[in-house]
Amino acid sequence: MRRGIATVCLSGTLEDKLTAAAAAGFDGVEIFENDLVVSPLSPAEVRRRCDDLGLSVDLYQPFRDFEAVPPPVFEANLRRAERKFDVMEQLGADTMLVCSSVSPDAVDDDDLAAEQLHTLGVRAAQRGMRVAYEALAWGRFVDTYDHSWRIVRRADHPAVGLCLDSFHVLSRGGDLALIRTIPGEKIFFLQLADAPRLHMDVLQWSRHHRLFPGQGAFDLTAFVGHVLATGYSGPLSLEVFNDVFRQADPRRAAVDAMRSLLGLEESLGEPAIAAPELTGHAFTEVAVDEATGPQLAAALTAMGFAHTGQHRSKPVQLWTQGEARVLLNATGGPTEISALAVESADPARSAERAESFHAPVLPREHRAGEADLSAVAAPDGTAVFFCRDGWLSDFTPTGSSAAGAGLLGTDHVSLSQPFDNFDEAALFYRTVLGLHPEMPTEFAAPFGLIRSRAVTNPANTVRIALNVALLRRGEWAPGVPDPQHIAFTSDDVLATAKAMHAAGAPLLEIPANYYDDLDARLAPPPDLLAALREYSVLYDRDEHGEFLHFYTEVLGSRVFFEVVQRIGGYRGYGAANAPVRMAAHRRLRLARQSG
Amino acid sequence: MRRGIATVCLSGTLEDKLTAAAAAGFDGVEIFENDLVVSPLSPAEVRRRCDDLGLSVDLYQPFRDFEAVPPPVFEANLRRAERKFDVMEQLGADTMLVCSSVSPDAVDDDDLAAEQLHTLGVRAAQRGMRVAYEALAWGRFVDTYDHSWRIVRRADHPAVGLCLDSFHVLSRGGDLALIRTIPGEKIFFLQLADAPRLHMDVLQWSRHHRLFPGQGAFDLTAFVGHVLATGYSGPLSLEVFNDVFRQADPRRAAVDAMRSLLGLEESLGEPAIAAPELTGHAFTEVAVDEATGPQLAAALTAMGFAHTGQHRSKPVQLWTQGEARVLLNATGGPTEISALAVESADPARSAERAESFHAPVLPREHRAGEADLSAVAAPDGTAVFFCRDGWLSDFTPTGSSAAGAGLLGTDHVSLSQPFDNFDEAALFYRTVLGLHPEMPTEFAAPFGLIRSRAVTNPANTVRIALNVALLRRGEWAPGVPDPQHIAFTSDDVLATAKAMHAAGAPLLEIPANYYDDLDARLAPPPDLLAALREYSVLYDRDEHGEFLHFYTEVLGSRVFFEVVQRIGGYRGYGAANAPVRMAAHRRLRLARQSG
Repeated sequence: MRRGIATVCLSGTLEDKLTAAAAAGFDGVEIFENDLVVSPLSPAEVRRRCDDLGLSVDLYQPFRDFEAVPPPVFEANLRRAERKFDVMEQLGADTMLVCSSVSPDAVDDDDLAAEQLHTLGVRAAQRGMRVAYEALAWGRFVDTYDHSWRIVRRADHPAVGLCLDSFHVLSRGGDLALIRTIPGEKIFFLQLADAPRLHMDVLQWSRHHRLFPGQGAFDLTAFVGHVLATGYSGPLSLEVFNDVFRQADPRRAAVDAMRSLLGLEESLGEPAIAAPELTGHAFTEVAVDEATGPQLAAALTAMGFAHTGQHRSKPVQLWTQGEARVLLNATGGPTEISALAVESADPARSAERAESFHAPVLPREHRAGEADLSAVAAPDGTAVFFCRDGWLSDFTPTGSSAAGAGLLGTDHVSLSQPFDNFDEAALFYRTVLGLHPEMPTEFAAPFGLIRSRAVTNPANTVRIALNVALLRRGEWAPGVPDPQHIAFTSDDVLATAKAMHAAGAPLLEIPANYYDDLDARLAPPPDLLAALREYSVLYDRDEHGEFLHFYTEVLGSRVFFEVVQRIGGYRGYGAANAPVRMAAHRRLRLARQSG
Repeated sequence: MRRGIATVCLSGTLEDKLTAAAAAGFDGVEIFENDLVVSPLSPAEVRRRCDDLGLSVDLYQPFRDFEAVPPPVFEANLRRAERKFDVMEQLGADTMLVCSSVSPDAVDDDDLAAEQLHTLGVRAAQRGMRVAYEALAWGRFVDTYDHSWRIVRRADHPAVGLCLDSFHVLSRGGDLALIRTIPGEKIFFLQLADAPRLHMDVLQWSRHHRLFPGQGAFDLTAFVGHVLATGYSGPLSLEVFNDVFRQADPRRAAVDAMRSLLGLEESLGEPAIAAPELTGHAFTEVAVDEATGPQLAAALTAMGFAHTGQHRSKPVQLWTQGEARVLLNATGGPTEISALAVESADPARSAERAESFHAPVLPREHRAGEADLSAVAAPDGTAVFFCRDGWLSDFTPTGSSAAGAGLLGTDHVSLSQPFDNFDEAALFYRTVLGLHPEMPTEFAAPFGLIRSRAVTNPANTVRIALNVALLRRGEWAPGVPDPQHIAFTSDDVLATAKAMHAAGAPLLEIPANYYDDLDARLAPPPDLLAALREYSVLYDRDEHGEFLHFYTEVLGSRVFFEVVQRIGGYRGYGAANAPVRMAAHRRLRLARQSG
């Protein structure tokens, strides 16, 4: 199955876009007219560039406002079309996309539309070309795929067929089964885009919020399944208008796009390296320097961890408590979560799968006798390791054992994502690790809106929370920049908080107003409320259960810890309480700056 | 008339917000519950802080999902209300905002809603408080102001009144005249927000896109006029949820907010210093350094300008051609448009008005005998001078005279705005200079979407184009950063281009594809097309006329020039051609970086 991408999906000049598409392994491109118009390359030069890059030019697009118009307008439109055929000839493109008209010149007359498309088909055929007619979801008279198909049938010319665009079809809802009644050879082109479910003007939705397949809420698998069932044999081609992708590095966006198609193909039953089961968080690694290393060690100690192992060849300490494991890696670089490790039923296959989904494979550095851990880089640069067992033997036991404060394991790792890569990250974890992205949520924090999306395994033993500021932060961004944290589980968070408090852990103090409001809102039992208040433990509730959690201060510039207890089937991450945490962190930061 | 602002309008902690509101001169605040909840200040401490800052606490908000519920829920809601009355008592707030319910517990029963609000009113009155009931535009059963007014009337308690919010009222459309039938003393509170006209889910529209009055499309003047006609005597209080303001410097946003109220009050007939007529662009100043000074001088020379004057005391050169005037100011700092000067019928009054609208007044630096030009700083830092005549005598004539290439004057100055200040800038020019903001437009450029909005005087002799990237630029931003340019007028742009070309001006070359597409799209007469192509002149057309224009290369890092000719009543700025210019500038930049 050939894979294509419209140049409008990517940022930059046409030259930037073609290079990026080829580097990501696409077979072909749709050339978006405006990209060509601003280019100094002639269409013939673009064709040569594409040839050099191994790209076919699958579609020239869009041609607008052609059909169902009065004769003089039609004559002008034919002239315009001929000029574009000239361009296509030079480009080596044989298919032109014609969108259903939004022109005030158009009339509501399917026969006229069909007749004029027939004429266009005759002209196209004379040049060995063809016309793919597409119903825009906001077309003036033709806005559904079945309507466009009626007109194509009526046009009755071998060079006039259909372009199906998943956005235009799925944004309108309606019955997809009719797709299967269309002969595959009459579907000239298939454009794919996903999107979040938004309740807004469909044109604005389309122009700003499209996503690559697997990043949104549309069922692309079902849609493409219907199309393939017709015998359609053209490319799967992405056409995504997205405000972020339009300004993001096209080289990365093209890889993201390719990953989305690979994921879609897998969901359609194409052979792929199946994702081995992930069973939990093996460890999380924090890079530290000379100042923050002792700070984190002291915090972990007060939290009941012990430095139980020392890496045989690297400056890496293993800190454990129950199944909770933190590595402190004295890289000397910025203090941050540098790696997360998931337990895989088959680490080697996990790594193979990751590579097949274009995850950047990180160089393996290990000595003889040490575990050969495979790792790939997530979009935010965090290393993701796959491991099963054996890796612990790389650490020489120190003989220490954890005092313990009731921590059992790791609940989740929370990572702020680079602004341009939030949707890429969810797709990365979905395809590369086989995790399930939950619905994105948004909440108002003291310094702007935050968008959050968790990815989990079916058993919820691996949870990664991805966060991003809704708008890229500017100069006024006094919160903790790009915070990251590790959340550990406890089955008695109040006892854990008490123990950590007694041991002098740097726990975050929560203001009294929070508890007064909690009392007013949810009215927890008075003794519970009193205990929450005493130990600065936060509380949330959903229809499935309850959530108790508390935080440490920020250690270094952006890393902190959380302890959580899930009671019943609570599914969230306490987002309602995140603003309280953020304001408290901000206060400490201010106090330190001025103190 | 008292002026208030809801803390939710501003970014930061509650402390940040109160400080900013007071500094901008507000009389009172609405305390948004979440701002208090995350604060370490107790309500009593907040009250003291407000007292110290000279702020009253006009409203505590919001209280949600109270009315029209079954008895057990009602009991819980009353308990919750009492807790919030406790908070309000400490805060010194006597009015609580109650939003119409969105709760699944609520039923569609106006009598029950009224009865329960009556009970709440009794409780409030016992504590010397009152309840302002507001119809959310997305309320479950009560979503219009007239419906909320029917319920308030039925509740029939002196402590139960109405809160009118311009967004909720105006987003729904409908008849405003009914407002005048409400007794003023039953309108307990008035919340003001503007918004752009968007076709989307009203809740999302409200939560993300509200603007300060004068920044959007709503007729706040008419709305507030109706409310004031009732005898309403409470504050004009801003309640604006805006993604950008939520993350922007609250000190600036509060000044912007205050400016919006001052503008609104003026439109309502409050006395203000009337804006003197502006008649044209007097000059535009470009700051240059040792490298760019000669580069700009050479470019201006080739464009037919002459260095006709030298400032008596400052390193400033006056370059003129016709009525087009450019100052080159050898500041040695970054090369940028550092000032624009408008001709005012009364410069001193223009400056007084600017100051009364909180424009930052710039220090005047002039020697005895030199013109005393008043200037204020626009939101992007550009100095805005007001002048009439006389300023030219500060320049000693050099004896040179312009060779001339047909330039007549200045058409517009185009300035990229800081991301956080785009809406602030339009309001600044509207209120401070009395210019008229045109409708904002958006277009797709090679490196992301651009939003653009022009401000003009009625005669269109002063035009300032404001631009901003729709998303703040990140690391992949290879276009010209924050471009600025001055557009000069010619009445024969082709002859001007030819003359400048012959003189070796650094004109921007436009690719052939553009002209092929122009031919296909608009089919200009062949000889015109040939001339446009030969001299890299761009072409646009609207329903009012035609636009011919060409650009120079970027001089320094971000400044360039444009020459334009408006034929007929063309109103735009050639936005359709901007992407061509941007891609061409990007190419030159790349070529220079690699060459």
